[in-house]
Order: sequence, then C-alpha cells, then structure tokens
Amino acid sequence: MTFSVAVSGATGYAGGEVLRLLAGHPEAEITTVAAHSNAGQRLGDLQPHLHGLADRTLVDSTVESLTGHDVVFLALPHGKSGEIAAQLPAGTVVIDAAADHRLESAEAWERFYGSEHAGTWPYGLPEMLVDRYGTRQRSRLEGQTRIAVPGCYPTGSQLALAPAIAAGAIEPQDIVIVAASGTSGAGKALKPHLLGAEVMGSMTAYGVGGVHRHTPEIEQGLGWASGGQEVTVSFTPTLAPMPRGILTTATARLSGALPAGQLRELYQDAYAAEPFVHVLPEGRMPTTQAVLGSNHVQLQVVVDERAGRMIVVAALDNLTKGTAGGAVQSMNIALGLPEQTGLTQQGVAP
Amino acid sequence: MTFSVAVSGATGYAGGEVLRLLAGHPEAEITTVAAHSNAGQRLGDLQPHLHGLADRTLVDSTVESLTGHDVVFLALPHGKSGEIAAQLPAGTVVIDAAADHRLESAEAWERFYGSEHAGTWPYGLPEMLVDRYGTRQRSRLEGQTRIAVPGCYPTGSQLALAPAIAAGAIEPQDIVIVAASGTSGAGKALKPHLLGAEVMGSMTAYGVGGVHRHTPEIEQGLGWASGGQEVTVSFTPTLAPMPRGILTTATARLSGALPAGQLRELYQDAYAAEPFVHVLPEGRMPTTQAVLGSNHVQLQVVVDERAGRMIVVAALDNLTKGTAGGAVQSMNIALGLPEQTGLTQQGVAP
Amino acid sequence: MTFSVAVSGATGYAGGEVLRLLAGHPEAEITTVAAHSNAGQRLGDLQPHLHGLADRTLVDSTVESLTGHDVVFLALPHGKSGEIAAQLPAGTVVIDAAADHRLESAEAWERFYGSEHAGTWPYGLPEMLVDRYGTRQRSRLEGQTRIAVPGCYPTGSQLALAPAIAAGAIEPQDIVIVAASGTSGAGKALKPHLLGAEVMGSMTAYGVGGVHRHTPEIEQGLGWASGGQEVTVSFTPTLAPMPRGILTTATARLSGALPAGQLRELYQDAYAAEPFVHVLPEGRMPTTQAVLGSNHVQLQVVVDERAGRMIVVAALDNLTKGTAGGAVQSMNIALGLPEQTGLTQQGVAP
Amino acid sequence: MTFSVAVSGATGYAGGEVLRLLAGHPEAEITTVAAHSNAGQRLGDLQPHLHGLADRTLVDSTVESLTGHDVVFLALPHGKSGEIAAQLPAGTVVIDAAADHRLESAEAWERFYGSEHAGTWPYGLPEMLVDRYGTRQRSRLEGQTRIAVPGCYPTGSQLALAPAIAAGAIEPQDIVIVAASGTSGAGKALKPHLLGAEVMGSMTAYGVGGVHRHTPEIEQGLGWASGGQEVTVSFTPTLAPMPRGILTTATARLSGALPAGQLRELYQDAYAAEPFVHVLPEGRMPTTQAVLGSNHVQLQVVVDERAGRMIVVAALDNLTKGTAGGAVQSMNIALGLPEQTGLTQQGVAP
Repeated sequence: MTFSVAVSGATGYAGGEVLRLLAGHPEAEITTVAAHSNAGQRLGDLQPHLHGLADRTLVDSTVESLTGHDVVFLALPHGKSGEIAAQLPAGTVVIDAAADHRLESAEAWERFYGSEHAGTWPYGLPEMLVDRYGTRQRSRLEGQTRIAVPGCYPTGSQLALAPAIAAGAIEPQDIVIVAASGTSGAGKALKPHLLGAEVMGSMTAYGVGGVHRHTPEIEQGLGWASGGQEVTVSFTPTLAPMPRGILTTATARLSGALPAGQLRELYQDAYAAEPFVHVLPEGRMPTTQAVLGSNHVQLQVVVDERAGRMIVVAALDNLTKGTAGGAVQSMNIALGLPEQTGLTQQGVAP
Repeated sequence: MTFSVAVSGATGYAGGEVLRLLAGHPEAEITTVAAHSNAGQRLGDLQPHLHGLADRTLVDSTVESLTGHDVVFLALPHGKSGEIAAQLPAGTVVIDAAADHRLESAEAWERFYGSEHAGTWPYGLPEMLVDRYGTRQRSRLEGQTRIAVPGCYPTGSQLALAPAIAAGAIEPQDIVIVAASGTSGAGKALKPHLLGAEVMGSMTAYGVGGVHRHTPEIEQGLGWASGGQEVTVSFTPTLAPMPRGILTTATARLSGALPAGQLRELYQDAYAAEPFVHVLPEGRMPTTQAVLGSNHVQLQVVVDERAGRMIVVAALDNLTKGTAGGAVQSMNIALGLPEQTGLTQQGVAP
Repeated sequence: MTFSVAVSGATGYAGGEVLRLLAGHPEAEITTVAAHSNAGQRLGDLQPHLHGLADRTLVDSTVESLTGHDVVFLALPHGKSGEIAAQLPAGTVVIDAAADHRLESAEAWERFYGSEHAGTWPYGLPEMLVDRYGTRQRSRLEGQTRIAVPGCYPTGSQLALAPAIAAGAIEPQDIVIVAASGTSGAGKALKPHLLGAEVMGSMTAYGVGGVHRHTPEIEQGLGWASGGQEVTVSFTPTLAPMPRGILTTATARLSGALPAGQLRELYQDAYAAEPFVHVLPEGRMPTTQAVLGSNHVQLQVVVDERAGRMIVVAALDNLTKGTAGGAVQSMNIALGLPEQTGLTQQGVAP
Repeated sequence: MTFSVAVSGATGYAGGEVLRLLAGHPEAEITTVAAHSNAGQRLGDLQPHLHGLADRTLVDSTVESLTGHDVVFLALPHGKSGEIAAQLPAGTVVIDAAADHRLESAEAWERFYGSEHAGTWPYGLPEMLVDRYGTRQRSRLEGQTRIAVPGCYPTGSQLALAPAIAAGAIEPQDIVIVAASGTSGAGKALKPHLLGAEVMGSMTAYGVGGVHRHTPEIEQGLGWASGGQEVTVSFTPTLAPMPRGILTTATARLSGALPAGQLRELYQDAYAAEPFVHVLPEGRMPTTQAVLGSNHVQLQVVVDERAGRMIVVAALDNLTKGTAGGAVQSMNIALGLPEQTGLTQQGVAP
C-alpha cells in the first residue's frame, strides 16, 4: 500500500526529521514539501542532509497545496495548526506535530499558550497507558484521521512514570522531573542564547517553576494513567550542549502500595511487548547517544528506599521518538500498517 | 607575606587546577609539584596548559617531598590522604581535596567509601551556614591547619539549599536534587564510557538511587544548616557533554513556614555579602559557561506554588569553586589573607 | 536473495557501524557477532545503540566461528586480518575493514605499519577512478570475494582529488591535504588524549609531517587515477571535537592543462551518476552534519586563481562512508545486489 | 600607574574579552563600558560571566562617552572604527580590535571590505618579525597612541610562518594554510548556520578560494617578514564545534636555503625570549585547550622531506591572543608597562 504525503513546515527541525524518516518509509511517497517563507527554494539548500530529496522544490504551505494527499504532517509553530487542519478533508490523515491539539483543557491551553484552544485529538503516544487496566493509546489511534503528536518532554516523562502511577505505586502529588534536552528542541529560531558559542560546553535551566508549556501535558497524561487522579508535577527543563536527545530524570515518592522490589518487574512487564521502549538490564543506564536518530527509548528504574523515592531515567531522541518518529509510528497505526514500518533504524553511536 | 606550597597529585585534573590558580596567586610560591607515577617528568608534558610551570620537574609524592612547606595541597585519590596527612607537621596548612576528611560519620564513610575513616577536618565551604543563626563555615576555618575541601556536587547542592533549610522554609525529608556535571568530574582515569566519542553529544545518568558518594556529604551539610534535623536527599548525578561545570537543580517541598514570596529575598540576604555567590536578578538563569574557570557560583530561586516546591538552580565550575578554587579560598582564610586573593578571575565565556 | 553474515570485531566502532547498517539491510541475515575479548557477553551491553541485536551473544572470533557464512566482515586491529582471512573459504566474501590488504607496495606497508605485508585485495571505493579513462573501482569489485575497505581519510582525499588529477588539471607533486576527524576515528582504545574532557572544545593535530599511515594509501589511489604518475601528498590529520565526521580540505597547484572555469563542471560530470557523491551547488559548503550516519559524501570545488590552486572540500562520516558504509556498498557490488541496498539513510541532522 | 579605560562594543565577544582581561589588570581602571544598542542596560545581563562588573551600566558608544580616558578599546564591527577614532584626542591610546586600520593597501581594503580605507596604524602583534634582521613589531608599538589589533587567523598564521620566511627557508609563493576556528570567531550576529544545533558535532569550511578577509592581512605580514617579497597564500578557514580556539596548519614548500634539520632550531631561537609563544618539545602537538582563555600560543614545527614541505601547527585562543589579549599586550607596550601585565593567566584545561 503506497500512500501520498505532504509535509508542511518542511524547513524546520521537526519537518526535516519527518522527511528524513519518510524518505526511508517503504510505503510513503513524499508528494509535497511545503514551507511558509521559503516557497520556490530547493529543499537541498535548506535541509542539506536530505540527499534523497535535495532537488525537491518547496511550495507555499496552504490549504490548497496540502489538499489531495493521503497523509499530511503539520510541523508548524504552535497555534498555527488549528485553522489549517480544520480546512483539510476529513478523510485525510492529519498528524499535527505542534501542541495545538494535545491538551483537553481549554483553560490550560489558554494559560500556557495564550491563544484560542483548537480542540483535542487522539494522542500519538502508542505505548502510553490511558487507564489503570493496561489500555494503551495505541488502541485509540487505529483508523483515526487526526492525531496530535506529544511534546518531546512529555514523551519521556510519561513513559517514565506511567507504569508506576497506573499501579498506584507512587504519590501523584509528589513527582519531580528534571530533564536535559539538546538544543534542537528549541527550534531554528534565531535567539542569542542558542548560538553555538553560547551553548557549547555549557548547561543552563529555563522555564523553571512550573511554567514550561509541557507541564500540563505531562500531568494530563499521567492523570489518564492514574485512573483520573489529580497529578501535580514539578518539572524543570535544562538545555544541554548537544544537538539532539533528552535525558529525563523522573522521581516520585513511593506510596508503599507495591513492594519496592517489584518496581523494575512492573516496568519490564509493562514494556515487554513494546518494540521501541526498553527497560535496560539492572546496572545499565540510558544514554541519549544510544537512541540518537532512532525511535527507541531506554529506561532504567531504581528505588532509593532510604529517600523513599523511585527514580526513573529515560533517554530518547527529541526529534525522532520525541517528535517525528512518534508521528510516523502513529501514522502507521492510523493507516493499519505494521507499527515499526520505516522506523527500524538503530541508534547512531558513537 | 609569601608562603611556600607543595601540590601533590599534580598531574590530575584537581591538582592541575590548584596549580593553575596558585600560579596566579600573588603570595604563593609553588615550591614542589609532586605525583606518584610521573616523578622525573616535566610538568609541561602532562599539564600543557600550565605554561608558567612547564619546566618544573615532578617529584615523587612522599612525606619527605611534601615536608618543609607552609602549605600542602593533597589532590590524591580518595582514601590516600589520611596516612600522608598524619605524617605532615602539625603546623603545615594541609588542604585535602579528596573526600577523606569530609564526613563526620565513620559509618557513612565506610558504607560509601569502603575504607577506614581518617577523621574529620574543618569543612572548606566558607559561605555555608553551619547553624540556624547565620554562622558560616568561614569562621571555623580561620587559623586552621587542616581543611577538607567539599565535593563538587555538595558545593552546589549545599549552597543551593542552605538558606531555605536554615530558615525552616522547606521540608528536610522531601528534597530532590538532579545535577549535571562536566566529565572532568570523573577524573583522568581511563574508562571506556569517558572516551570523547562516547560523551560528546550525549547525556547519561549514573550513581542513581542514592548511591553516589556525595549523598551523605550533602545531607551532612544541610543537617548542620537545619540546626541538627535529619535531612534526606534524593540525589541523581548526570554526565553532560562538556569538560567542566555543574548545573544543579535542587528542589524541595515548601514547609509553609515562610511566605513563598519571601524566598528570593531570603537568598539575596543570605548571600549579599558573599563575593563568590550571586543570586541572579529575577528571570535570569545560571549557566555554567558564565562561571567557567572562576570561583563564582550563580543561583536562581523560583517558587512553584502549584506544585508546592522551591526550585533553586546553581551553576559552578566543578574544578574551580567545586574543588581547587574552594581550596585556595579556604587556604586564604586559614592563612589570614583576604579571601579573594588569587581568585579574581571572571568566567571564561563564551 | 538472503545471505548470512558474520561480523568480527563487533564491539569496536567499525564493527558496530557494520552491524548498524546490516541491521537495516533487507537481504542480510546477521548470523554471527564475534569479538575477541568479550565472547559470551550480550551485544546490548557493549553496543547499546543496536536495539535490534541487543540480545545476541558474542562468540569468540576464530576461523571456526567465522566459517560457514556467505559474507564475513573483519573489523579487527591492523595486522590481524591477514592470517584469519587466509583460512576462510575462498568462496566466502570477505570484507576487510582494516588496512591489511589495501597497499600494493609491501615496502610502504612495512614502513608505515611495521609488520609483514598480507597482500593486496580489490579496493572498496567504487566511485574512485582507477585510470585516466574514467574506469572506476566499481568494475573491479564485481564478483570478488576479497575486498579491502579504504581508510577513512583516503576515502575523502581520493574522491576530492581524483577527477582533477585524472584530467591532468593539477600538479601531482604539489598537493596539500588537511583533514579534521571526529574522535571515533581513533577507535575505542583507552588513551589519555582521547578522554572526553581532553577532546571536547579542543582541536589538535597529530601524525604531522607525512607520517600518518593513510599517506601512502592516498598517494596510491591518486597515482592510479593519474595514470601511473608519481604523486606526493603533504597530509596533516587533525582531531576535532565531534564523535564522527571528516572534513577534508584538499588543495593542489593548478597545472594549467584545464581552464580554471571548467573544474567544477569536471567534478559535476565525474560524479553525476554517483548516488553517494554530491558536488554541491556553487556557494554551498560541505558540512559533516549533513552526512552524519549516512553513506553520502558532499564536495565543493573552488579555484583560487590568484594563489594558483584548486581547493576541494569534502565531508563524509568516517564510520559510514569512511568505513562500514563503503564496506556494505562494496559487498553489494560483489554480490551483484543494487549498490544502494541498505544504504538509503539520509544524514542525521541537526 | 593607574590608567582609565573605556571599552566600546562591550556587549560583543571581543569587547567582553577585553573587559575580562582588564578586570584582572592591576593598573587598569575600567571607567566606561559602552555599546550602541544596549545603552542603559546592566552589563551583568549581557555578559553574565563578568561578575566583577555586573552592576556597571552601559552607556551609548559616542565620541563624547569615549573621550576623557587614558585608553580606549574599540571592539566595533568592521568599518565603524575609522570615524570614531578620528575624533578621539590624539593623546588617548586607542586600540582598534576591528580590521579598519590593519591593511596598508587601500586597494586590498576596498576589495575585501568594500568600504573606504581608514588608514594604517601600527600592528599589534609584538612578536612578529617586520624584516629579515629580527626586528619585531614590538619596537614599533612603544609610545604609540593608535594600534590596530591583528585578526585572529593572521595572528596564528603569521607567527607560524614568520621565522621561516624571514630566513628564506620557504617559498613565498607556495604557502597553504588551513585553520579551524571556534564559533565565537564569527561573533554574536544571529545567523542560522551559527545556531548551536547546527555547529555542535559538525565541521564545515567557509570563505574558500582566497576570499576570506584575513588573506591579504596574512600576506601583508609575511611580506614584511620576508623583506618585501611578494607572498601568496592559499588560506582556507573552517568552523569547528568549539566556542573558542584556533588551530592553524600552515605548510610551505622548502626553498632549500636552510637544511631541513635546522628549522625547529630556527623557531626555537626566534621565540626563545617570547613570553607568550612556545615552540613545544619535539613530538608534542599544540592543542587549543592548552591555551584556552590565555594569551599563549603553542607551535610545533615539522619537516616532511619527502613532500618537500614544512608544516607548522599553531594553537591559540581567538578571543585572547587572537584579539583581546593581543590588544592588552600591545597597550602595555604602548604605555611602557611590563608586557605581561594582566596577562599571566594559564590555559583553562581541561
């Protein structure tokens, strides 16, 4: 089954990664590459790593240019997807890599994003638990034509905590997450603090104090997994001197509902059947290099009984599993393709 | 007042940094550079950045070679300082950059370091509160001849939390610290995971679950500041792709004893007179680049009222303020010199 | 057509990259992963990025374990391939990623490598000109069962200079090459100067003065392309703070045989039909990021008429096109498969 | 002798480095920090590493604000210094870190910079030979009130080649230089290719083909040293994934006028008395980390007799010796201070 695809926002990091993956997808035919401000230019001049697509010409990103494909990926700035998506045919599979359709709460959307809420779409994190009975988001993506791709931080944070919170093993009000992201997570916008000379060899924090936009999304997902409890997360993102990758350190107070010795097993069972989520053998720690350019996630689960907390460390590639890989994986499910199609890359290490 | 100095462990990262700082110290005369396995070699061949000392010849690190100086710095592997220090004259100022004399609890020492406890020396973190009444370690270092330099992680963690814990503003049993360190923190030992090709562009965690050796040291210092309460810390160190620097994210549950709005003021007051500790203006975040090669520490304090936690972010250079700078600062105090002597370097940015 | 493969030296960087590519090769069945000192261990513990092969067990690397496959990749230290290859069945396709079978001159081999010459195999750089009439190495690889993979530096240097030297456009005695390599090029051996803290943020040169082992290999290849002239190259390798990638700056004095204005066209023509070698549009410069993890090479050709020199800049990934990708590409040709099979990855950027 | 200083362009990388060094200069009193577009802001908000100057307020950069100091540093964009310098009092020592007053040839200035030539000032590279008889630039800087700071690439390139060209040991028409620079060399301007995600882990070339603006400056300096011969250089700059540092590989054809075996000795003699230029022991290679943040330059000289070329590798910090350090050193000479005053920093390694 071959299907036609349009990618909007093709000159950004997310759009580029969608194209990189689709170029290796055996069923996808990339028909249209669209961008707002670079229409008419050669893709190879803006995304020189996409050798197989170098001679494609960018078209303007409009409802017209995006209409007529089986699948449309939207990799636009936050707040721009809603209007365009509403005008695309209902039968087209639309995958939105922006935040616009992730949050159920219009109030949270408006508070964190400051614009009108565009509505909520099925959430493209197939491995994620959506209740305490083991149901996964996967089952809610089959046959869908509208899918919201999770944020890069929420992908790691939710996968890191879902099994424990679903099992009632941790306190939903005492969760602390600190995550380190490569700078591609901040996009291609020209900001002084993102210059190479500023970021190389340096770590900094940002969005400190619960103000990062991914906070409500993390709490929303963990709330689903917890069976509807209110979840409060202290989330601190930091910027690390690397182009890609997120290392998430997620800790939570143990509730005592599960013996500490059973937590690793809980995670191993939860992800045993997942092709992309790997609970590492005891003693091995996730590293972002090991998942670079791939759709894989590495997890390790450790209990600190003295401090009464569980610590889960997760590594993923913010652009692959954290954005474009998750998008392609969700598309595969929506289209009824094998979930791993086009996503068989290993990590690019060293 | 000129004084003579010997530096033992001169070929390692800590020893090299002590020498770098002493080479710019107007009163220090570096008389002896000692190392165990490179005796007879030219210092310039092993520490090529120390141009001013390039032609010095390394001597073996023995009690004999270290005796006869006003000051001796020990930058040896953990567990090696005790025996050598015991044989140095009582009047010599001995600054131990290893962990050997940091912990009061022999039990904690043996559990985390696995060797016999060498005893406890005054703790070389001058700005640190040692009780709830504002007393600083500084006052306990004056005139001393034996000083234990703090660990690099404890330096940032303790400075980040001391004012709040001393004020009773945070819960001493609900503290979560995640810190990212440059790889020089792991020393010069040849380990596969420290190869450049492994660490560049990659983040990983280690010592997860309360097992890192700096955990009891952090708890000890915070215990002093808290007025003797039991403090439990969940501490997770991570390895960042940079040679130097530590970014500490320290969070703790607010006790409610202090209005949230007063926490930044509490920190500003606590460090207003400190030449090396800077609470940044609101909205500015610490960055390790800004303190690189300097003895400065940058702090930011944010309250997340929704999550009920305080988050303090701290940036320092693990080799300077985190080791050798703190060592020289403590030496200055011990010798009665102005505390900033030889430590006036700004950060090397970008 | 499915074929069975054994990879020897599976725990090193070259072996790991061969496995990464073969894991995505639609016809390859990886039957044996072998290593000398880690036999019995799980591959996932040593190459954690190879998620698809994590549970494979390493076997000892012996003639016995390597016998019985259609294809054997040898990714062993230099000087180790000769003996083992001699004992493998003549019908087995053996691809040697080490230097052992690259040089025709036994004298050059002995001078630069210091051991006995193992003989010469067809040279696995398919795009390379082997004479002045446009013949490529490709034609000499078809149906072969023994192939020597080029060195990483020679791959870039030869592709950068071959068209010009074959056309007589440059002086074969006035060639200067300076190349910057990521540190994976130095392998996984534990050497102090390869520690992360030493290489990050730093550039250095090594093998200066014509003593690097790749020098005779570069001259040999350019000699073939020149139609048998003696070629002398001044080659200086440098170590760059990145895990992967080689940027080659190759310059040569113009002979005047070809008008300066025709040089870019010469290169465009030479590589127009090549799927992996790209002469960039004028004004665009090769960047190693754009080829990361891929088998592609980017070239740019500029003439400096004032200085009388041609400058060709080439970017490739030392582990992919520079080693394992070239190896798989050559294997495809030897087996009669389409040359790009399993090598369709785009660069992993940013 | 205390003198007052104004620094214009205080928010850029060059201006920040001038301030970093002056903050440690025992005789300098920084009276005015000026910048065009950030007047009224706190310096600490823009240069957070300058802790000692954090509370200084930026003033507008005008003739008025810069008048009335003993010394003025101009760290402005190229083409902006001429006009402002012409209006400063003749008795004020003006140090121009831009290119405006470096080139003697108005024609070269106009060709490479595209604006009107502002005239030529004494050239602030004290160690540089200005003729074949051993005279140094140093002697031409004493008592001067106008000094042009060399470009970062010319500093390394000229020091690397001057002794050989002055001795007639190399051919002035066959010089090839390839240099790798940290990205701070490109300044703080917001350009897409300078984003951290683009530069980390990647090498690229730029200004290829003799078009980089530093080419005529290198040739000018080497011309002086050669005793007025015409010198032609093929110069290729590359961008390396590091914030600071330049590694220069300078090669030239041997003329035969000097036995190859005497070249290292020639360099050792030439720089024996220089406090900042170090010819390393045989077998040791310059590394940018070893000079980071310092005014030192490391050199190594190797002869490749087979290729008939000399290769000199030089490492320096582009912002220190390559800009601000050279500026302060020149100022010291102009003011009659000991040349090393305020420049005693060792390299910041690792």
